[in-house]
Amino acid sequence: MKDFALHPRLRADCHVLGSLAGCELLLNRNASLPWFILVPHTAATELHDLEPELRAVLDRAGDNLARWIKDRLACDKVNVAAIGNLVPQLHLHVVGRRIGDACWPQPVWGHLRAGPAYGAPELAALQSDLTAAVGLVAA
Amino acid sequence: MKDFALHPRLRADCHVLGSLAGCELLLNRNASLPWFILVPHTAATELHDLEPELRAVLDRAGDNLARWIKDRLACDKVNVAAIGNLVPQLHLHVVGRRIGDACWPQPVWGHLRAGPAYGAPELAALQSDLTAAVGLVAA
Repeated sequence: MKDFALHPRLRADCHVLGSLAGCELLLNRNASLPWFILVPHTAATELHDLEPELRAVLDRAGDNLARWIKDRLACDKVNVAAIGNLVPQLHLHVVGRRIGDACWPQPVWGHLRAGPAYGAPELAALQSDLTAAVGLVAA
Repeated sequence: MKDFALHPRLRADCHVLGSLAGCELLLNRNASLPWFILVPHTAATELHDLEPELRAVLDRAGDNLARWIKDRLACDKVNVAAIGNLVPQLHLHVVGRRIGDACWPQPVWGHLRAGPAYGAPELAALQSDLTAAVGLVAA
């Protein structure tokens, strides 16, 4: 897709970690828990409107990311969602959850309170690990 | 999968509409907005742990259901999510949203207040329409 631009709300809320399988990989700035977001390059706003090839790519990227989150970040559960009520640009939340985390057992959306920020070394370590493990092309 | 049994919490919260592509199709009893749930027959608890064939079946069933929700129920957006923090049995939420509905723009999880119940004729009409449109095998 030509002329792809990240939605300003996503840019404000997230760090851009880089590119994963052609999707933007974002990390919510709230470091209370590992909240990643995949943004495919498309004008579609619903999962069911994605071209099948891009849908398959997004699914695989989300699955690989979810496995990495669960294993590497020692999470008990991964929450996966395409919501988009506030930000129409299609984006897939892939959120690592731990029993007893900042809003367990509620989902993060509308429940997670403001939390700490990531430090630069922590972001760099995540990027490095994701590059080795799932093929992130770091920003 | 042998010996499939719906989780008691899902059974308590939802109407069982029938079977869609081998998944159970549920409808949350809260009729404030159209909140469907697909439950594949699997012991996996994460999307990324589903066998590829079953994952593809679930994706297609969810997509067909989402299209039907958006078109037939005149929704502005569809929210799709696999969360599972409270109910470990893998289930995919497919929720029709309308601007200004009972908890717009918040997601339903943890935000939707108690609402009216479906009447029997309304449930029968939904089942009939889903049977014709997406191949539901009504319960």
